Amino acid sequence: MKLVFSFGEGKAEGDPTRRDLLGGKGAGLAEMTSLGLPVPPGFTISTDACRSFSHEGKIAAELPPAVDEALARVEKQLGMRFGDPSAPLLVSVRSGARASMPGMMDTILNLGLNDETMKGLGERTGNMRFALDAYRRFIAMYSDVALGVKREHFETALDEARGRVGKDKGIDATRLNAEELRRKVTDADIPELELVKVVAKFKEIVKEKTGKEFPTDPRTQLWGAIEAVFHSWGNHRAVVYRKMHDIPESWGTACNIQAMVFGNLGDTSATGVAFTRDPSTGERVLYGEWLPNAQGEDVVAGTRTPMPLRATEKNSDDSLEKRMPEPYARLVEIGAALEKHFRDLQDLEFTIQEGKLYMLQCRSAKRTSKAAVRVAVEMVKEGLVTKEEALLRVDAASLDQLLHPTLDPNAPKKLLARGLAASPGAAQGRIIFSADEAERLAGQGEAVILVRVETSPEDIHGMMAARGILTSRGGMTSHAAVVARGMGKPCVAGCSALSVSYPEQTVTITQYDDAGRPTEQVKLSKGDMITLDGGAGHVYLGALPTVNAALTGEFAELMGWADQVRTMKVRANADTPLDARTARAFGAEGIGLCRTEHMFFNEARIRAVREMILADDVVAREKALAKLLPEQKGDFAEIFRAMQGLPVTIRLLDPPLHEFLPHEQKQIDELAVTLGVTVAHVEKRIKDLHEFNPMLGHRGVRLAVTFPEIYAMQVRAILEAAADVAAEGVNVIPEIMIPLAMTSEELVRMRVIVDRVAGEVFATRPRVAFAFGTMIELPRAAVRANELAQVAEFFSFGTNDLTQCTMGLSRDDAGKFLPAYVESGILPKDPFVSIDVDGVGALVKLAVERGRSTKANIKLGVCGEHGGDPDSIRFFREAGLNYVSCSPFRVTIARLAAAQAEVHISRKGRGTPSSGTA
Amino acid sequence: MKLVFSFGEGKAEGDPTRRDLLGGKGAGLAEMTSLGLPVPPGFTISTDACRSFSHEGKIAAELPPAVDEALARVEKQLGMRFGDPSAPLLVSVRSGARASMPGMMDTILNLGLNDETMKGLGERTGNMRFALDAYRRFIAMYSDVALGVKREHFETALDEARGRVGKDKGIDATRLNAEELRRKVTDADIPELELVKVVAKFKEIVKEKTGKEFPTDPRTQLWGAIEAVFHSWGNHRAVVYRKMHDIPESWGTACNIQAMVFGNLGDTSATGVAFTRDPSTGERVLYGEWLPNAQGEDVVAGTRTPMPLRATEKNSDDSLEKRMPEPYARLVEIGAALEKHFRDLQDLEFTIQEGKLYMLQCRSAKRTSKAAVRVAVEMVKEGLVTKEEALLRVDAASLDQLLHPTLDPNAPKKLLARGLAASPGAAQGRIIFSADEAERLAGQGEAVILVRVETSPEDIHGMMAARGILTSRGGMTSHAAVVARGMGKPCVAGCSALSVSYPEQTVTITQYDDAGRPTEQVKLSKGDMITLDGGAGHVYLGALPTVNAALTGEFAELMGWADQVRTMKVRANADTPLDARTARAFGAEGIGLCRTEHMFFNEARIRAVREMILADDVVAREKALAKLLPEQKGDFAEIFRAMQGLPVTIRLLDPPLHEFLPHEQKQIDELAVTLGVTVAHVEKRIKDLHEFNPMLGHRGVRLAVTFPEIYAMQVRAILEAAADVAAEGVNVIPEIMIPLAMTSEELVRMRVIVDRVAGEVFATRPRVAFAFGTMIELPRAAVRANELAQVAEFFSFGTNDLTQCTMGLSRDDAGKFLPAYVESGILPKDPFVSIDVDGVGALVKLAVERGRSTKANIKLGVCGEHGGDPDSIRFFREAGLNYVSCSPFRVTIARLAAAQAEVHISRKGRGTPSSGTA
Repeated sequence: MKLVFSFGEGKAEGDPTRRDLLGGKGAGLAEMTSLGLPVPPGFTISTDACRSFSHEGKIAAELPPAVDEALARVEKQLGMRFGDPSAPLLVSVRSGARASMPGMMDTILNLGLNDETMKGLGERTGNMRFALDAYRRFIAMYSDVALGVKREHFETALDEARGRVGKDKGIDATRLNAEELRRKVTDADIPELELVKVVAKFKEIVKEKTGKEFPTDPRTQLWGAIEAVFHSWGNHRAVVYRKMHDIPESWGTACNIQAMVFGNLGDTSATGVAFTRDPSTGERVLYGEWLPNAQGEDVVAGTRTPMPLRATEKNSDDSLEKRMPEPYARLVEIGAALEKHFRDLQDLEFTIQEGKLYMLQCRSAKRTSKAAVRVAVEMVKEGLVTKEEALLRVDAASLDQLLHPTLDPNAPKKLLARGLAASPGAAQGRIIFSADEAERLAGQGEAVILVRVETSPEDIHGMMAARGILTSRGGMTSHAAVVARGMGKPCVAGCSALSVSYPEQTVTITQYDDAGRPTEQVKLSKGDMITLDGGAGHVYLGALPTVNAALTGEFAELMGWADQVRTMKVRANADTPLDARTARAFGAEGIGLCRTEHMFFNEARIRAVREMILADDVVAREKALAKLLPEQKGDFAEIFRAMQGLPVTIRLLDPPLHEFLPHEQKQIDELAVTLGVTVAHVEKRIKDLHEFNPMLGHRGVRLAVTFPEIYAMQVRAILEAAADVAAEGVNVIPEIMIPLAMTSEELVRMRVIVDRVAGEVFATRPRVAFAFGTMIELPRAAVRANELAQVAEFFSFGTNDLTQCTMGLSRDDAGKFLPAYVESGILPKDPFVSIDVDGVGALVKLAVERGRSTKANIKLGVCGEHGGDPDSIRFFREAGLNYVSCSPFRVTIARLAAAQAEVHISRKGRGTPSSGTA
Repeated sequence: MKLVFSFGEGKAEGDPTRRDLLGGKGAGLAEMTSLGLPVPPGFTISTDACRSFSHEGKIAAELPPAVDEALARVEKQLGMRFGDPSAPLLVSVRSGARASMPGMMDTILNLGLNDETMKGLGERTGNMRFALDAYRRFIAMYSDVALGVKREHFETALDEARGRVGKDKGIDATRLNAEELRRKVTDADIPELELVKVVAKFKEIVKEKTGKEFPTDPRTQLWGAIEAVFHSWGNHRAVVYRKMHDIPESWGTACNIQAMVFGNLGDTSATGVAFTRDPSTGERVLYGEWLPNAQGEDVVAGTRTPMPLRATEKNSDDSLEKRMPEPYARLVEIGAALEKHFRDLQDLEFTIQEGKLYMLQCRSAKRTSKAAVRVAVEMVKEGLVTKEEALLRVDAASLDQLLHPTLDPNAPKKLLARGLAASPGAAQGRIIFSADEAERLAGQGEAVILVRVETSPEDIHGMMAARGILTSRGGMTSHAAVVARGMGKPCVAGCSALSVSYPEQTVTITQYDDAGRPTEQVKLSKGDMITLDGGAGHVYLGALPTVNAALTGEFAELMGWADQVRTMKVRANADTPLDARTARAFGAEGIGLCRTEHMFFNEARIRAVREMILADDVVAREKALAKLLPEQKGDFAEIFRAMQGLPVTIRLLDPPLHEFLPHEQKQIDELAVTLGVTVAHVEKRIKDLHEFNPMLGHRGVRLAVTFPEIYAMQVRAILEAAADVAAEGVNVIPEIMIPLAMTSEELVRMRVIVDRVAGEVFATRPRVAFAFGTMIELPRAAVRANELAQVAEFFSFGTNDLTQCTMGLSRDDAGKFLPAYVESGILPKDPFVSIDVDGVGALVKLAVERGRSTKANIKLGVCGEHGGDPDSIRFFREAGLNYVSCSPFRVTIARLAAAQAEVHISRKGRGTPSSGTA
């Protein structure tokens, strides 16, 4: 097993196809070297060595000889030697995983220095101050990452030196804070003699903190640095980052060792970072920053203000373009060549040493969604990538950023709490605790945020009225989260730091430090102003400014390509005519899930619904249902008109009846008065309907098995509306969907009801074709899909409930342990966000196979929350579904994700990885 | 398709292998005819004709000619003709399905009579009174079942005649009720002349009620009767009976038409029923009743007291043996022959016409469990059946009757309410509403019945103290039902007619009439005496006497054979040393499920448990757990001693923590004081732990993912106990079982905990071998069983939870609709009683297959409630499980059911149906 890959003098042992071994940085260095670009020589220790280290707890025996050999090659190429005072070779040591990963040990510069080589360096460069400066930087950096001595000790010592220097200049350091002192007395102001003291002090600090002398042997230093890189793969921040970004633990990091070049050798030297296009807007101009006479860390340290690369009217004096035109031109040329070579926007690091440009890193640049779209589309036009590749270049999930207003990133903020990023977008408003009041105040033009422990269908009107929703309980698929996403409304859910008191009309927010210990409590009252960032799950104090991201023409163009490529349809979950129109505007090709129960909550209707529930017999129930019929029919008619020519799947009543009854005594009393029954009667019914596990209770088709008249009314409303709207000349395509089917026998009985009602409706109206289908939400339904397909003309996978039942997870309760499952890696992801392919997915596949074995052309879709998740969409395409359905605001994401799935599948089909340009 | 099968003169077209076409009665008549027994000739219309009738709504066209032909054959054999006044053929028409089915139209006798044939019959028999009596019986019977004229109209008219006759005898009918009148003036007392009037009156009644004359044409009568038989297959009572006994709708009934013989032709004629052995005790003596000068219906009518067949000291004067020795001897001889022929206890109907014995029916007799066991064992000894067949002759589920005391069937009773037969046995006691009070009073020697809306783990001590448990809510697998069965304690659950008021300490019971309308309410208070029949689900007022069924030697013998035959092991679910000993006494071969949580509810321990739950960090939690360690260890040690040499599977903590916290304010206040925390703290924790769907919540292994120290304590208790008890020389076989696994990764982490603790425990104690396994309770676990098997050494299917998740049914809530599902035939059975083979079973099979694909010798068992259900046991054997585990009181049932499953499988393997004797 080859553990070390050299690069230098135009030749490299590695190449970008071995990115898994070399890491991103190593692969980039190798490739730049092979392209003949000016890269200081060096070598990459592969990720295999890191894996071996993690596993064995020590450096593999084969590694040291290989490193020696590679190091010798660098020495030979440069005519310098590691530890040789007369021609000292200094190196940088940098980690580099397959994916860029903040949180890991990043860089140690100037490694190889000790008292002797420092002097040698000073003599060789004729700049002893520079050598001393490099030495003190090295001691601090190395001690921090490899010896565990906190950086702040060195900073303090350095600040003392600054104070002394300032005093000489007449600056009173005692009146300045550290930040101000550093700006007044810059590194460059510290004279050589003072640096000698600093170095001596730094060594003392190391001795004091570690009990040992700072290592003087360059090889000891080197191995300490290599181990630190490998260790850093396992540090807390790195682990958290990997979880967040689905980076497998097993990848490991590579370690790059490269000869130093110096950007701090005087005014003809410099260092900087560059993007081949603007990573924020996507504009095709070289973008970046630089500092003269500096090392890389100075750019990040913030003590000096970096300057722009490109000359514009405002900045021409500071730009690299003006100040160092030759290296700049070379950088532009190299950037263009690399972009062309890698066919993607590049993020570059460079150093200019005494006028000569060196490349230290290139990688695909992170970019905003906006930039991603623009770059992808423009690169197609430039002939750099194919349309298919362009589609893959945009993170579908990130399109959310383009569809919702977001917080102004530059506004000062006070973060109050973090919850789940349940529904994206930013919203400001006054805290209101009840749906009724939210509705009332919103009616008066007030911006409100509805704050609840959790929401229920009774809160819908308040949620519609509010600008955003904040809950202290519930997960990504809690009622609040699902409904908010459906409404395209910002929502932060499951914010457990909140303690809501309805009686007091206050919310107490506990603040935690980084270690998770509670620090202070903030108590807010009704009417206090807060801001939600639903895309981040953040809650801020006060009203923060927001910005609307513009939808550029490139975005529309990209979506056009996506629509050409994808074969899977995208529908929307829409319950109201407004939803339907929004969905259509976002490009939905039908409604995959129209939940009829939300229509029941309107003030006028809920009374009839409750009357129906409290009825003692069929006759009374039918009387109450008759009141709902014209209302439901009106809703359906509007939706059919909005979706002209597109299918509309209507799910018959699903939730348990108790969800429609009031819970508060006042409302119960009112209801009794309204319906002319005793309070005891209402209370008894509420008690009777109570369920221990409503998720597994009397709901879905089970309601119609015991009360067939409910579905009969709904079917009549659907078919009468369909016939009437069709008579207007509208092309109506209704699909009647039965929820929670467990056996084919249930479907047979529902089909009998549907056929009977259809016979009655079409006896006096022109016949409208309609489809009859079922949801697959229960594992049993998946297992018996072959039988269900004998009755159903379509299946729609309700993957929320299927996940709940297959995994035995209540989405309302899982918040107590699911985060621990995901954090500790037992589950790769929240299965309510991205489908559990191995478990739930296996049942979906089984159902697809069995359903098609009975009815080859059965129409298959999905209408769970997963329908809007790109990873899940890819799975659904692979499983062979005909469509996905998601909330209107995710339709765009789904369209792109469906196209990406198609590209992935066709590539897998061709058996080749991405290659070639258009 | 042959629709009609003739029998007569020693030949029959049918035989018992065609029972599906002929029904039980038809098959018996055919076989008796073929055996040369004295059977009046006739023919059977097959079930095909009934099915065709049900389907088409009319008699099949091919049927009438076939009936005509068969009728002509009977006429020829007897030299009589249908409707011929000079030699009138009369027939009986009787339904006869494959399985005996009360509720269907049973019998019409004397069909073929009209004014002319009645006269002819009178002349031919020389007994006009007999002919008139037969005529009036026929009109009433026929009008009732074929014309829909209620029987009571005819009874009233007949009572009027009795009144007239009585008057002549000096009896004042006005002072008697109908019952008394009928006893004073018997049918035989009614003279010929009066019967003429009765017949005329009967015809008037028919005319008045139907608007038509009573049909005089014998063929019209015949077809009316045949249609009535077919119709009766679909009547309400028949449908309900079929559902109760799992008889498929599609079977249909056959219709038997047979020449009449008359038991009412004077004192040398008689009619009766006989069993070849006593169906109540199984004793090998002819058992039955007879009436001289009577037709079959007189035996049932209850106006005359039937007399015993066999002569004993007490009854010699009345016995058939004494009164008609010749026909009696012939009956004994025929009974013996039939029993030998059919190799089973026979239920016979016979008629003696003028000294000659005729056989009218034979079928396998229904019998008590006690009789079933004795007959089966004795028949093996008599060489009639093999041991294997004997095993199949006993309904395994009915063994419950032999294991629990039952109500004295002869005691007068006042039925208060019906609920679910949740746990068999009879119990009397005073109504008590709280577990604490039940415990206190039971401690004082009082017999109490614990009456609750539902029970929770907090009530365990009260349940243990009570004689029986009655709940108004919950199904067959509700907490009350499961725990009661586990304790072998009578329980009636889900008794919805009950309305329990804890504040008033009363229970109000609504009574319903047959149509389900509420009639009256009975209010009982604390201390009132009631009796439960847990085997029937009945609640009675007062203390009814009970009887203990003796376990005879045959029972033990049969179980011995069962143990020889079966290959599947039977274990018990046992949580306490007492349970363990009981289980062992019933023949359990290990403990398949030891639930550790029940051990947590004891007064002293619950405090530590609650302290643990209220702890704010790991340290406090571990401190509380340390208090539980010695307690748990002590329990395990006792159980290991009781189960010496047998495996003990211990499930680590499963229920959500909120189950251990109090719900009532008083208890909450007390807890706060005890633990020295604020009430608000306790209340907050209770609120935090609340779950919407606890079934799908934070329980099972999920508890240990978030609080690993809980399982660590339990594992330590198990292994320390095992090591200490092993040191006493006891052979200890512990199996540690992880509940609610969803992924193999969870098991890996649990295995790490187990191994760490094992290392610590066995560092100072001799090592004891133990197994590590998991429950398969989630559909996902079944789907990923191949992965789970990489870590688990055994699987135990938790089919309760697997059913809940696979079907999306909460066993606590399903009572609201599951009965409707079973009644209407959507589900064949309650899936919590008998496993849903098609859905849940399919996942069990999948898991078996996948588990064994990874680990061929993985041990597989089941520990859900289904482990004690015979049908489920058969499925588990077919699925290839190694053992079932059930409550101790069902171990015997499971042992027999496992043996029966084995016999069925070996027969299927041989591909032959049952045949031959030993």
